[in-house]
Formats: sequence, structure tokens, C-alpha cells
Amino acid sequence: MARYDKLVRNAAGRSVPCLINGEEHIPYKGVGKHRPVGRRYGPPLSSCADYPADGDKRVPTLREALIRAGLKDGMTISTHHHFRNGDLLANQVFDIAHREGVKGLRWFPSASFPCHEPIVSHIQNGVIDRIEGSMNGPLGKLASEGGMAGVGVLRSHGGRYQAVQDGEVTIDIAVIAAPQADPFGNANGVNGEAACGLLGFALADAQYAHKVIVVTDNMVDFPCIPWQIHGNWVDYTVKVEKIGIPEKIVSGTTRITKSPDRLRIAELTADFCDKAGIIRNGFSFQSGAGGTALAVGQFFAQTMKERNIKARFIRAGSNKYPVKMLEEELTDYILDGQTFDLEGVRSMRENPNHVDTSPFTSYNYHGKGNFASMVDVVMLGATEVDVNFNANVVTHSDGYLLHGLGGWQNCLFARNTILPVPLFRDRIPVIRDEVTTLCGPGQLIDVVVTERGIAINPRRNDLVKKLENSGLPLKSIEELKKEAEEICGKPEIPDLDDQIIAVIKWVDGTVLDAVYKVKPG
Amino acid sequence: MARYDKLVRNAAGRSVPCLINGEEHIPYKGVGKHRPVGRRYGPPLSSCADYPADGDKRVPTLREALIRAGLKDGMTISTHHHFRNGDLLANQVFDIAHREGVKGLRWFPSASFPCHEPIVSHIQNGVIDRIEGSMNGPLGKLASEGGMAGVGVLRSHGGRYQAVQDGEVTIDIAVIAAPQADPFGNANGVNGEAACGLLGFALADAQYAHKVIVVTDNMVDFPCIPWQIHGNWVDYTVKVEKIGIPEKIVSGTTRITKSPDRLRIAELTADFCDKAGIIRNGFSFQSGAGGTALAVGQFFAQTMKERNIKARFIRAGSNKYPVKMLEEELTDYILDGQTFDLEGVRSMRENPNHVDTSPFTSYNYHGKGNFASMVDVVMLGATEVDVNFNANVVTHSDGYLLHGLGGWQNCLFARNTILPVPLFRDRIPVIRDEVTTLCGPGQLIDVVVTERGIAINPRRNDLVKKLENSGLPLKSIEELKKEAEEICGKPEIPDLDDQIIAVIKWVDGTVLDAVYKVKPG
Repeated sequence: MARYDKLVRNAAGRSVPCLINGEEHIPYKGVGKHRPVGRRYGPPLSSCADYPADGDKRVPTLREALIRAGLKDGMTISTHHHFRNGDLLANQVFDIAHREGVKGLRWFPSASFPCHEPIVSHIQNGVIDRIEGSMNGPLGKLASEGGMAGVGVLRSHGGRYQAVQDGEVTIDIAVIAAPQADPFGNANGVNGEAACGLLGFALADAQYAHKVIVVTDNMVDFPCIPWQIHGNWVDYTVKVEKIGIPEKIVSGTTRITKSPDRLRIAELTADFCDKAGIIRNGFSFQSGAGGTALAVGQFFAQTMKERNIKARFIRAGSNKYPVKMLEEELTDYILDGQTFDLEGVRSMRENPNHVDTSPFTSYNYHGKGNFASMVDVVMLGATEVDVNFNANVVTHSDGYLLHGLGGWQNCLFARNTILPVPLFRDRIPVIRDEVTTLCGPGQLIDVVVTERGIAINPRRNDLVKKLENSGLPLKSIEELKKEAEEICGKPEIPDLDDQIIAVIKWVDGTVLDAVYKVKPG
Repeated sequence: MARYDKLVRNAAGRSVPCLINGEEHIPYKGVGKHRPVGRRYGPPLSSCADYPADGDKRVPTLREALIRAGLKDGMTISTHHHFRNGDLLANQVFDIAHREGVKGLRWFPSASFPCHEPIVSHIQNGVIDRIEGSMNGPLGKLASEGGMAGVGVLRSHGGRYQAVQDGEVTIDIAVIAAPQADPFGNANGVNGEAACGLLGFALADAQYAHKVIVVTDNMVDFPCIPWQIHGNWVDYTVKVEKIGIPEKIVSGTTRITKSPDRLRIAELTADFCDKAGIIRNGFSFQSGAGGTALAVGQFFAQTMKERNIKARFIRAGSNKYPVKMLEEELTDYILDGQTFDLEGVRSMRENPNHVDTSPFTSYNYHGKGNFASMVDVVMLGATEVDVNFNANVVTHSDGYLLHGLGGWQNCLFARNTILPVPLFRDRIPVIRDEVTTLCGPGQLIDVVVTERGIAINPRRNDLVKKLENSGLPLKSIEELKKEAEEICGKPEIPDLDDQIIAVIKWVDGTVLDAVYKVKPG
């Protein structure tokens, strides 16, 4: 039984459903074309008369907290990925739901990871109807093979905030794992065994969910300082033995690439930014935490040192590299959405110029501006790019949904958006006639940098002009595609089923594309 | 023409209107008896597509910002009292409204001060219909004499947040004066010539107003750190020459009293707290910034030093005294709602354990708990107390409305609420048969300390028992009243007009009492 209605062609030329899981959605209209109507969501009013005067909201177990929060069939339950692949909480939530006989839940994580593989069974046994959020690894595979009852909905970090703020997704129960909390529910991510840096992904949930549960393995006396999450939003607090696996909280990719091709891409990217005049005193950049991105950051640092200039801010995903730049005064600030290693955590704890941000400040498109469009240059990854500079970041070229959107869509609004990508991966070309799944409209993607040349989006005539005599290996995107195909052959178009297993939301809540079921083996 | 309908008797036995300025209100039902229905207010959705991508929201003048924000007849305009008697902005806002021919505005300040006396003319010329907020000094006098068209509505700091959050008051335009801001609208109170500490009173306005204008005399490049106000809430920013008069931003009352009677009250209060077992390791207190309150704090500090114990937190209104206690490690934290001197500002800027709070965290009664009820002991002032421990803080015994509620009502929820008050002022007894205006229900007021004895509320049988052999001069409240009357004579009951000029809201938005017009001369 299809969980969506007939398809309409949206402004990107993609066929998307408007009724998804019984809820109305709006097809994508173009960048900046959709204006939201209505008002921000207002969760039910509460009264201090219904909360303990001494501020002690502790309940003995997560099960009891969920039951007191009214856990029942069909609810929307949110969790967060601050612990990344070291999260120990989400699986427990759905184990409890299973034991209590609850069915048909919508899981609304800020992201899911391979550690959530046990949730496959709860999708199969009907505890979870669908995931709205990224499905990295095993959960994405399951969905791709048609194993999820409902249609998955993928949103960017900003789109997730927007959806909650706009009332598109009502969260019944938010379960927030915190490395430090007090009995009132004030919580932060900078202190404790499981310190992960910040709790920004849970902000929308804390503000808008009907019931909020804070779970910690590090309960301190009121007040827990800093309070990245306000206890005034929280209904129940729970102390558990262990909230996350510290060594898995740290993200793996914190080593600068050693691959000659990747280093070449990084060098070309940095060289491009320099010759385009982007690396100047007071500039800002976001380079991400991948091996190539880190190498770009190192090139930037070197250039800044040589010229005795500094950045105004680095947008991060922080780890030891941007932290070093902050400490060497190569930047005034790190504006950080997610710390990727313990150096990032330490710096955020100790350095007032290492500032925690959230999807609200950085990415919410239905705010009064956000930080993403104020960044001079952002370097982003992609699984595929097409000849119109459209890009894909969630599916592989075989159609499998294996990655989330993260903040990727939101970052496209930077003044200059560069995709440093290899020309091919495993002999599969990255540049194609058409992307398998459209995640980012080409009009927002300015430059594609590969190890064999740089393609500037013709829409960016200013960049084309500025760089024409730069000596950089500038090529058209079609030339790059041709080079890849000469080496790897023309890539096959994946032969997909016509069943939609997930949709891709744009930053404004409209439906940008659909993801299709893969045909069995 | 009366701006209210016929009166009903509320749960405190006070006669109050239910229709006020054409809006429905609920009569007071008793402490913790009213449960709000409905949902938090949701202001209109916005889109980044309508805000500058580079984050530069500057407009040349306050006038232009107000016009772009749609300033028109009947709107609600909010301002804030972070600059106290040194504010230079609110008068300008209404001067502009006057020049633009706008009429019938509701001014919704977090408090007004004598520096706002020029606004008297804008009440008289019809630019302002009414003030909803405290009316200290000349504006209170004007209202008391029937000079305001609409009925004033007085709310506590927490009640102001509650009213905005609940949608009881919709703010059309919030004008936020900031000692430091960036073009995007991020703003703080800790940096700059006019540094006032924090901007917590503007939080509700930033979150919920339809249009938000940030005005500063200290515009810095993005990002303005810390961002106590998020630029993501802000529509326009304005740079002006001078935003406030620094020497008047600092509150006058930061000297410990030298009056022997006041010192006696302070000593008895501290002694009471000690003998009641309140001063113990890890306790918390809020003593305010008056001369007597500061003396109490000093006694506390001395006791803690002698016993080698420390407080967990001090709730402040901070100035150099609690700052010294923080620096001497007599408390882990200051949880600060308003800094009263430059030492307070410096400490908040430099010391991560000097934490800024807001009416949301500290006082909002329609939250999931707040900080006020978690404080072990609070010392508060009063203009009058009656034999049922009901207290008044806004009118004098002649009926004149000369003070605001501030956080006073909210603080009554502390574990122990003490009113250290003189037995009489200018030969007018403070303890009376009935208060002129009811601001705080007696059931929340535990102890009245005067220079001639201490009255414990009989409801607090635990305190009565604990202190019975303490050697403290315990008396009944009636005995204290009798002593005062023996000295000053029986006080006259003020002969007031029957026209209501303002109402007093309780922390839950219900109407606790009415304030009457004073009869001419």
C-alpha cells in the first residue's frame, strides 16, 4: 500500500508526492520562492503548579519517564546524534516501547548512525512506522529495500528546526541525552565522561516538544552551568549508568588526507579561494571535518600566517585543527555546531571565543536570516554532481540511501559554495548527466573542484571573469564529466523500482525529490 | 468613560474587573489554582528570503526602522529598562510616533523610570493610550490622578514573560537598546560604553514580537559575542550616537545602610535565617540591592566565612557585594537577572560562574518550573503588610501608584520569604489591617522582620516551632501593628475615588487587585 498520493512535477523538474504518510506537503518551488504562511508552533501551556517547587524532576528510570510522558501508539519521538556512533539511548527508547507494546511510532532523530542497527528490528516489528531523519548505513539500506512501513522524510539540520518551529512535525516526546545535567533539567555537552561539546541539535525539541526528558550519567546539583538546554523546558530527568561510549562520540575522520589525489583537490580548492580573493583579512569559512576539508583548512592556515591576516570566524564542526587556528589567533571565533573531537570539546568548554551555535542560529530558513548565508566560502562533499551543478549527498549511484543531509543544504547559501570532489570513486564517475537524487539545486553550487580540474558554474560570471587568467586548470563541467567517462566508461543509470521509500525536503519545507526503492539484487 | 466592566470579587476578596481595555481577563483564583489552557503564542513565520543574505539589517535611523516595522495607531510597542534611569531610547520612540501622527499606542515597557517623564506629554496628547508595566515616579503619579486614557496593567517580570508567551499581550514592535550589537542583530549588555550587564528583560520581546529592532551605540562586526539576544529574531538594526547615560545605568542604592534601625532589621533577619537553619553549606539566597538587603548579605558572608561554608548560588540583582562573595568563593554561582553596578557588569563579562538569567528561567510561572521556588530564602521589601501577611509593593498608603512589581511577586515562591521592613516610615505604620493594594498573598509571606520584633506567619508552624526558644524577639503580627500604632497613631484609610486606574496581575495572568484614582488635593 502506497503511503503517498500521485506525483506532481516540482520546480526542479522532479516528480514528488504532496500527500506523504497522510500529511500534506508542498512541492519545491525554487530557491527563495516559497513563503511560509501561518505562525510558529505553540506547544501546550504549562504551569509551575504542576512541577515540583524544589526543581527536582528526577524519575527513577527512562521507562518511567516515557510512561509518565504518555508514550502511546503513533507518537513522534525524537532523539539526537550528539554522541554520534556512541549513542546508547535511542535503542533503549524503542526497546522500552516494544516491551510496552507500543506501535506505529515516528522516530524523529537529528541523525541515525550504524550503532542504531538494532532499531531495524523495531521497524520490522511495527514499533516504528518510519524514520524522519537521516538514515546512515543499515537503516538506510533497510529503507532502500522497502523495509519501512512509512515513507522516510529527510531534512537538513536547518530543515528539521524549520519543520518543528513551523508545526509541520509535532514532537510528542523528546529524549535528550546530556553529558551533564541537574535534576531540574538544565543540561550541557561540555562536561562529563561523555562530553560531546554542545546540544544544539536538541534545541528545537526542547523548545517545542510536548514532553521533554533529559537523560544523563552525570547529574550535578542545580545549577548545571552552562545550561545549553534550559531546565524550564524539561518535564522529567533521569540518571542512568552510562549515556554514551566516549571513544565513539569522537568522529573518526579527523586525520588530514594522505591520498595524493585528495591532497591535489585540497590544494586546488585553497588555490582557487586565494586567487578568487576569498582569503582576506576578516573572511570566514566552513570546511567540514573530512580528510580533504581538513587539508583545505591547513592550506588556509598557512596562507593566513604567511600574509599575517586572520579570519573573523570559522564555522565548524570543530576538531583540533580549527581549535589550533583559534589558539594561534588565526581566527577571532569558532562558531561551532558540532564538536568532532575532544580538543573541540575542551576548547568549547574553556574558550569563550569558541561559541556553540544551533540549527536555529545557523540554518533555520524560516528565521529572520541565519548564519549560513554570511559565510564567505564553504567546502562541501557530494556523492554526485550533474552537469547543471545539481548535487546529491544522500544516495549512491546504485540508488541506495546511505547518508543524511546534515547541514549540507543549509550551507549551500554561503557566498561561495565549493564542492571539492574526486572525479570518480571506485571507478564510478561523480559528475553525471543527472543526479540520482537531487539534494541541492545547481544554482547554489558555484564551483566543483576535482583532481583533474575546476569547473565554475557559468551563473557565477564574476568568478569566471576573475579566474580566467589565474593559471588554474579551469574546465567546463561537461569536460570534467567527459574525462571521467573516458576513464571509467559511461555510468549506468540505476534501475530502480517505482516505489518511493523516502522524500528529500528543501530548507523551506517543500519537497525537492523522492528516493526510490532499489530492485532486489 | 470607564475602560473596564463591572467588578467581581476574586479569591483574595478583592473586587476586580474582568474586561479591561476591551480585553478579557480572569480574576485571581488563589495560589497555584489557575491552570492555563491553550498553547504558547506563535508569531508569524518569516523566511530568510526576506532578509539580507549578508546579514546586514542596518537601517539609517530609528524612525526608519519604526516605519519599516509598520508603526501605526493602536500598536503595542515594548522597550526595556536595562539602562534604568539612564535610558535614552523610549522617549525617542514616542517622540517619533508623535511626529508621525500615530495615536493610541500601548507602551509595554519592562519598567519605566523617572527619566521617562517626557512621556507624560505623549499620554496627554493621545500618542500613548496606556502603559502596561511599572510606572515608577511621575508616570505613576499621572496615572494615579486619572491622567491616562486606558487602564494600566502591572505585571511582575515573570508575569510579563508569561503574558507575552501566552499570547495575552501581542507585541507589534519591540525596540531593544543594546550596549553592543552587530548588523545582524546579535546583541549583549556586557560590552561597550553603556554596558548594563545583560538583556534578559528583552528576551520575551525578541522571541515573540512581530517586529524586533535592535538599537546600539556600539556596532561591531558579526559575530557580536556573547549574543544574549539572537540576531535570528531581529528585523532591523540601528546605530545611534548614544544609547544610555552610563552613570545613570548604575543603580543608586549600592551602599550598605548606616541607619541604626535598618541595621537592626538586617541583623535580626540574618540571625533569624541562621537560627532557622537556613544558612548552611550549599544554600541559596536572594537579598536584593537595597541598603538593608545588602547589610543582610554582609551578615551572611561573615557567617559563612566563620563556619567555612559556601552558598551554592546567590540570586541577584548583582553589585560589588555578591561579586566579592563569588570571588572569595563564598558561593559557587551568581544567577543574575540584572546588574546594578559596574562591578556586576565586569564580573558577568569575565567570570563564567556569574551567569545571566532571564524572566524566562527565573520567574515565568507558565513554564515547567522556574528558579524562584528553588531559592532557600529571599528578602523582599514592601510598602505595606497586613495582619494576614498580605503585602503591597506598588502603592503608598495615600493610594499613589509609585513603584513597579519587578520580580517581587515571583520571588515570593522561595522556600522562605522574609520581609525585612521598618515598623513605620515617616510616622506611617507599615503593618496595617488591610493593604491599600494587594500585590502578594499572605500565604506566601513567611516572616516579617522589623526593628522591634519578628512575626512568623502562623501557617509556617515549622518555623514557629524551630524558633520558639531561639531568644529572638518573636511577636505576633498584631502585636507589631499595635506597637506601631502606639507610636504613630492609627493610620488613616486613604479616601480614594472609585475609578480604577490600573490593575495588578498575579504571576499566572489572573487579576489580583485594582488600583484606584486618588482624589484631588
